[in-house]
Amino acid sequence: MTDDSREHVLPDSDEELETADVEGFDFTGDITLDTVLDSYATTGFQATALADAIDIVERMQDDEATIYLTCTSNIVSSGLREIVAALIREGHVDVLITTSGSLTEDVIKTAKPFKMGSWDADEAELREKGINRLGNIYVPSDRYVWLEEYLNDFFEDFFAEEPVRTPTDFAAELGATLDDENSILKQAADNDVPVFCPALTDAEVGNFLYYYRQQAEEDIGIEILEDYETLIEDGMLANKTGLIALGDGVPKHHAIMTNLFRGGADYAVYVSTGMEGDGSLSGAPPEEAVSWGKIKNADKNYTQVEAEATLVVPLLVAQAFEF
Amino acid sequence: MTDDSREHVLPDSDEELETADVEGFDFTGDITLDTVLDSYATTGFQATALADAIDIVERMQDDEATIYLTCTSNIVSSGLREIVAALIREGHVDVLITTSGSLTEDVIKTAKPFKMGSWDADEAELREKGINRLGNIYVPSDRYVWLEEYLNDFFEDFFAEEPVRTPTDFAAELGATLDDENSILKQAADNDVPVFCPALTDAEVGNFLYYYRQQAEEDIGIEILEDYETLIEDGMLANKTGLIALGDGVPKHHAIMTNLFRGGADYAVYVSTGMEGDGSLSGAPPEEAVSWGKIKNADKNYTQVEAEATLVVPLLVAQAFEF
Amino acid sequence: MTDDSREHVLPDSDEELETADVEGFDFTGDITLDTVLDSYATTGFQATALADAIDIVERMQDDEATIYLTCTSNIVSSGLREIVAALIREGHVDVLITTSGSLTEDVIKTAKPFKMGSWDADEAELREKGINRLGNIYVPSDRYVWLEEYLNDFFEDFFAEEPVRTPTDFAAELGATLDDENSILKQAADNDVPVFCPALTDAEVGNFLYYYRQQAEEDIGIEILEDYETLIEDGMLANKTGLIALGDGVPKHHAIMTNLFRGGADYAVYVSTGMEGDGSLSGAPPEEAVSWGKIKNADKNYTQVEAEATLVVPLLVAQAFEF
Amino acid sequence: MTDDSREHVLPDSDEELETADVEGFDFTGDITLDTVLDSYATTGFQATALADAIDIVERMQDDEATIYLTCTSNIVSSGLREIVAALIREGHVDVLITTSGSLTEDVIKTAKPFKMGSWDADEAELREKGINRLGNIYVPSDRYVWLEEYLNDFFEDFFAEEPVRTPTDFAAELGATLDDENSILKQAADNDVPVFCPALTDAEVGNFLYYYRQQAEEDIGIEILEDYETLIEDGMLANKTGLIALGDGVPKHHAIMTNLFRGGADYAVYVSTGMEGDGSLSGAPPEEAVSWGKIKNADKNYTQVEAEATLVVPLLVAQAFEF
Repeated sequence: MTDDSREHVLPDSDEELETADVEGFDFTGDITLDTVLDSYATTGFQATALADAIDIVERMQDDEATIYLTCTSNIVSSGLREIVAALIREGHVDVLITTSGSLTEDVIKTAKPFKMGSWDADEAELREKGINRLGNIYVPSDRYVWLEEYLNDFFEDFFAEEPVRTPTDFAAELGATLDDENSILKQAADNDVPVFCPALTDAEVGNFLYYYRQQAEEDIGIEILEDYETLIEDGMLANKTGLIALGDGVPKHHAIMTNLFRGGADYAVYVSTGMEGDGSLSGAPPEEAVSWGKIKNADKNYTQVEAEATLVVPLLVAQAFEF
Repeated sequence: MTDDSREHVLPDSDEELETADVEGFDFTGDITLDTVLDSYATTGFQATALADAIDIVERMQDDEATIYLTCTSNIVSSGLREIVAALIREGHVDVLITTSGSLTEDVIKTAKPFKMGSWDADEAELREKGINRLGNIYVPSDRYVWLEEYLNDFFEDFFAEEPVRTPTDFAAELGATLDDENSILKQAADNDVPVFCPALTDAEVGNFLYYYRQQAEEDIGIEILEDYETLIEDGMLANKTGLIALGDGVPKHHAIMTNLFRGGADYAVYVSTGMEGDGSLSGAPPEEAVSWGKIKNADKNYTQVEAEATLVVPLLVAQAFEF
Repeated sequence: MTDDSREHVLPDSDEELETADVEGFDFTGDITLDTVLDSYATTGFQATALADAIDIVERMQDDEATIYLTCTSNIVSSGLREIVAALIREGHVDVLITTSGSLTEDVIKTAKPFKMGSWDADEAELREKGINRLGNIYVPSDRYVWLEEYLNDFFEDFFAEEPVRTPTDFAAELGATLDDENSILKQAADNDVPVFCPALTDAEVGNFLYYYRQQAEEDIGIEILEDYETLIEDGMLANKTGLIALGDGVPKHHAIMTNLFRGGADYAVYVSTGMEGDGSLSGAPPEEAVSWGKIKNADKNYTQVEAEATLVVPLLVAQAFEF
Repeated sequence: MTDDSREHVLPDSDEELETADVEGFDFTGDITLDTVLDSYATTGFQATALADAIDIVERMQDDEATIYLTCTSNIVSSGLREIVAALIREGHVDVLITTSGSLTEDVIKTAKPFKMGSWDADEAELREKGINRLGNIYVPSDRYVWLEEYLNDFFEDFFAEEPVRTPTDFAAELGATLDDENSILKQAADNDVPVFCPALTDAEVGNFLYYYRQQAEEDIGIEILEDYETLIEDGMLANKTGLIALGDGVPKHHAIMTNLFRGGADYAVYVSTGMEGDGSLSGAPPEEAVSWGKIKNADKNYTQVEAEATLVVPLLVAQAFEF
């Protein structure tokens, strides 16, 4: 050893930091949702991000922000569907932006459940049995037979009004027909929460629109500019906005892009499994949106929890909202 | 040690396997693109997946399959834009499905380049300088000023024809105005490759459509059912189909969903950074699509390369296609 | 549309599955740790894996299995240190396998805390200030000055006994000197839980061993075969074994490799952020270990939660163990 | 639209950047390893990181740095074993730090190959057939029967010299017995490249050491402090050092930790699939090591390629080294 080497290993400085000590839950006191999750703030890594997310979502509400919830369809495939419905039911969400798969699956679940399955299934065997797989969730094919009939009846009325309609009208009028308190679309319809879904064709809802269009007498259509205008202009009228993005893709981008028109969202919480290093929107942390002006650069007004949503969303909702 | 323990460690069987030996490149012979990539087949892990992908894309072509290329907008942000344009230019791609961000960025690049930047920028500082960040790529804001003017002129003609148009018409007519051999839209227009983009509003193209719509005399619109019908029906007419999905999201799902109508795609190659464990379409391996009938279950007709696209797409294209 | 196409979209079969319905928490009843986490079993994706992990850890205990906890040093950097100490304190863990970084950091924390920091720090500036970064956790350099003195005193006694010692002896004798109920090493020493750490040199503990060795009169050493023998043979004597692997690397592999000698672990729960597709042990799911005989192939006796540990370990411990 | 909103969307500034244009390979000229990989520098995202890695490894050599290669055992399971052997054979590597699994597998491959297999095997069936799985690579169990005999003979001589030995001695003397130009250990022995492996017990090599120790007359051992001293002191004598870390874990940490004693490595290239957000060493980007002084903070002297190693290491080696 040389003095020189030791110097490298043991820098002189021992400046004290004014931040909190890292300190986890020690299981000596009461063990409740509150005590456990309170400890996350000083546990470090993603636990701290979840604690920050809870804090930001609470501040969104204190600030009476217009709250945008965005989600991909895996959220609705899973039991998080019930949580999204509960948030809308209780008036905690003002705008929902989602995918065609979400709408498809929410409607099916009003009639017949999805079933727990296995990640490691024999796909060809499932195909023969008419079972469709979504991760460890199974959807028997009869669900889609039922859906086709249901939607066909609905389309009859829906396109009778006008031949060219919007995705938000589709969601609102369809939701109004549903009878299930755990349905996202039903709760959205009942609570006047608009449901934006620009790529409405991109799932079975689109397939049945295609079938219906072939047999329809008129030239029916889905027009998407009107919804985009509404989303932008309602955003500009909001005093404050807060985004909760569960998953990535078009729903998340639609929310941040339209918030650009008001100088950025005031608050943003992302829950994502995306990879930053691929340069995609899906993997981009909220920091990147600041350079675009899609999220404002204020004091700790955004965070990202790097986690699969089913693990953390029930906790985030339980702690940040009143029920 | 007991006999019993040893038995667990050293099973009796030594059955010989008839598969290839694992054997990598040993740098003793010629070092060329061919020799290096040939060694990937027996290198294991993702190298083998890349070798399989090259093989499947070659078989797509031997089989005269209709080739669908799907890509997210980060592909176009990066230098893979030039590669997608080259594939279309040489007649290697029959259908392109992409995002609004891709169209936006392809048009901008016909006039002004994107610039290399840094992942770790100070976002607020970038915002002040009018520099937008996409991973380690920078887009100065003047690009969007130029784009607005360019699109405004284009919209004038485009909506004069009819007030309600489709995304494929948008892409084709816009592409025809462009003058850059490296433009995806220009090459698609010149080579009659349809460009599907259901969520056309979801980027700056959408923002400028919004501005234009506000000042337009007529009630302009973008209708998406007609394109979906075309995509499905053209697919049903194809003898064979092959998918190359670069990234995930709506473009990939649109390709596999519409291939469902023909009993599944005959070939599929995914390049993805998605996480299977979140149950998303983005992370779902091609196996999952087999249970849905979106991809056929044949002999080694699909694979997924778990990789960031810029690393592997130039290699895949160089080896699997003729130029 | 042709009949043929429709057939592909709507398979005949509608066989009913006997598994549970997918159903999430609907926020209508009591909101407690129990009610929220109970819903995870039928929420799907990683939530179901966490519910399975809780169940498996409960069964380990019912079965009076010898419980191995393995962890990497980031666990100890974070607030999960307190949780690991609590598990040992309450007699819930029988064997600990970890890294040199874990030992280093546990000892430091008995004297001075780690501090909350930021992921996006200016590294060169931190270096100047003598602040070392571990993700969003900061460790001021004075901690290492203190540690050197503390260890020097300890080494004096430790190597006086014999010049060549084992990592388990190091951990036990060092732990006995510590005075902090939240210390993993102290709790392990007090509760006779052996702490295995084969790569004892691989952190600051190793650096200070190096300094001490240079000035020592005798030729001191750390010998690792004796510990390996103990780990194997104690495992062979256990009626049942259960593994809880927090993170990957040498600690996890040491646990499953030595369980091979007894025909595999009876239970295994992994919490991991590893990527399966790179063929590493770190990313390999427990299924792979079954082919090696490192984990037994029984009925639902293993699972992996794909998650960053700080998010899920407090929940797993709160639900699966009694305090 | 309001003027105010437009202002947000179109910032005034259009400052020009002096960095390179983003521009990919356009497949109009020669298609060679050189031309394709040259285009990576301006392709963006991870392609740029690979181009930077090639550049940094070239500069290491120009600067006559002592080059440390670190690798995990999946590197040796795969065909990258041949590439590591070639690098040592040609004198391009000065220090190797690796795992016990690497040594185990390198020796087996001198006698019998590993075989290509499948990710989705039936694990219980493989177990019955005596086939061990490593990702998509299979290792029939007879390899381990052979290895035990081979090592038993070797141990006889190895421990006859002295009863307590070091991992570097183990690697050097074992390597000298091997007869395979593609063996890492043989090339290391022939070219006097030390092979560090602190956790020598952590694989089958450890298992057979355990068996041998039980039957040995003397109390054999593996001592790890002496190697650590050598690694530190040789590093301090080097004028410049460069690290190439393939995978993470103990090998990578050993390299950066011992470079701390010389004020940090001069150059570092990581190839990793680790997740930064879990706060682990494995996921930590090279930037984090700068705060610790493990890597120097100079001009573009380090990078990380976020990629599975088999995809990029053959390209990195082909471009950055002479053969």
